[in-house]
Amino acid sequence: MNKNLNPKVTLVGAGPGDPDLITLKGVLALNQADVVLYDALIDPALLKHAPETAIKIYVGKRVGKHSMPQQDTNELCVSMAIQHGHVVRLKGGDPFVFGRGSEELDYIETFGIKTEVVPGITSAIAVPSAAGIPVTKRSVSESFWVVTGTTSQGELSKDLELAAQSTATVVVLMGTKKLNEIVRVYQDFGKSDLPVAIIQSGTTADEKIVAGVIEDIAQKAFDKHIKAPAIIILGEVVRESQKLAELYREVVKINA
Amino acid sequence: MNKNLNPKVTLVGAGPGDPDLITLKGVLALNQADVVLYDALIDPALLKHAPETAIKIYVGKRVGKHSMPQQDTNELCVSMAIQHGHVVRLKGGDPFVFGRGSEELDYIETFGIKTEVVPGITSAIAVPSAAGIPVTKRSVSESFWVVTGTTSQGELSKDLELAAQSTATVVVLMGTKKLNEIVRVYQDFGKSDLPVAIIQSGTTADEKIVAGVIEDIAQKAFDKHIKAPAIIILGEVVRESQKLAELYREVVKINA
Repeated sequence: MNKNLNPKVTLVGAGPGDPDLITLKGVLALNQADVVLYDALIDPALLKHAPETAIKIYVGKRVGKHSMPQQDTNELCVSMAIQHGHVVRLKGGDPFVFGRGSEELDYIETFGIKTEVVPGITSAIAVPSAAGIPVTKRSVSESFWVVTGTTSQGELSKDLELAAQSTATVVVLMGTKKLNEIVRVYQDFGKSDLPVAIIQSGTTADEKIVAGVIEDIAQKAFDKHIKAPAIIILGEVVRESQKLAELYREVVKINA
Repeated sequence: MNKNLNPKVTLVGAGPGDPDLITLKGVLALNQADVVLYDALIDPALLKHAPETAIKIYVGKRVGKHSMPQQDTNELCVSMAIQHGHVVRLKGGDPFVFGRGSEELDYIETFGIKTEVVPGITSAIAVPSAAGIPVTKRSVSESFWVVTGTTSQGELSKDLELAAQSTATVVVLMGTKKLNEIVRVYQDFGKSDLPVAIIQSGTTADEKIVAGVIEDIAQKAFDKHIKAPAIIILGEVVRESQKLAELYREVVKINA
């Protein structure tokens, strides 16, 4: 180990997709990186903020293969920091919003390596926002609840039953495969008319939006071939989007 | 009206406090601003991203006075865009997280003025994160709920009763004056031992943290003179912070 090295790992949230949605602090960390470990969904433009000489390693999912196991990534973080100095671990969204950032820090810190976290814009808020959907709006929604569609047990979170009873805007990440289950929960609480939007690849050039109500959203998502990565937004705020206004006017006409 | 003008309003989220936590996209918008309308809690360093010639107007609360009424700010946005071109409306946090961004857009768009939204890092996630508290962590918390302490009716959101029954991490913004009420809701659901942290002026040099459990948090906040702006985080994830670990070890010792 080089004596001049100062091993450090900075966990940086890259934001929801658009490479300009990284923070200044994230860019400054990349500027100082000796090594960058980056996930799938990271725009290659972001790597340009790191020095040309920095080692850049992809640790995301490869076509037809699983992503590098979490433990291997953690070990790589530690060994790279010890060998090369400053490692930037670049993750989509925010490291602490279903990003397993906390687990990575716990592991790295057991080696006495200095860590820092630079938050990122979470897709849970920015993706609806870019589609004109505010997660909160006075007299429409006074809270929002972000739930994972897939818990560590692989199941839909039980919290969704409480969420469906609330007036909260509910944002489900990693939930497209659980869409039918989600719809059933809301139907059980008599919310068949609640507006829902599903946004695939939000904030990027490939963005694809489908909107409707609990009753028809599953069919619409199927017809439009919506697939992961996508987020589901449930609540009256969906109707507030100027971009989706035309659609909801049509829904009213059809039902009238 | 100057014919060369292209009236436009960009709503930019400035992030939670640290001026480096604005996005690149936010900086680029400021670079192109003819006018900047900025709130209280905006770090003056951020205004340096705007051209020297840009008009900068403070629309936040002044000592001993109320902030500019929302309607006046909206009208100022519109008249400045018509007179000067590109207005950047710089707001703390994220414009769509209790920022009334959606209302501002609705008003501005009725004048046919082009609008754009640049999301910001919300303090709801970044402030706990900077204190080492992940809002989600596998097998600890699989969802998080962001609630306002003060609804448009001035009351504590009714959703808090559902939140208290869930396993969600609950983040209360603008809730310091409602702390006793919040504590009571959690006690009613038998959660006196649930970890709670209150963070004042998070991510800035003035950051102040108090942590405890439902049972003792009100007394601790009082003793430490915690005041707004502060956010309250309730949930098992609070115990996950390395920074607060020492405190929770002591709590266990005292109770043992």
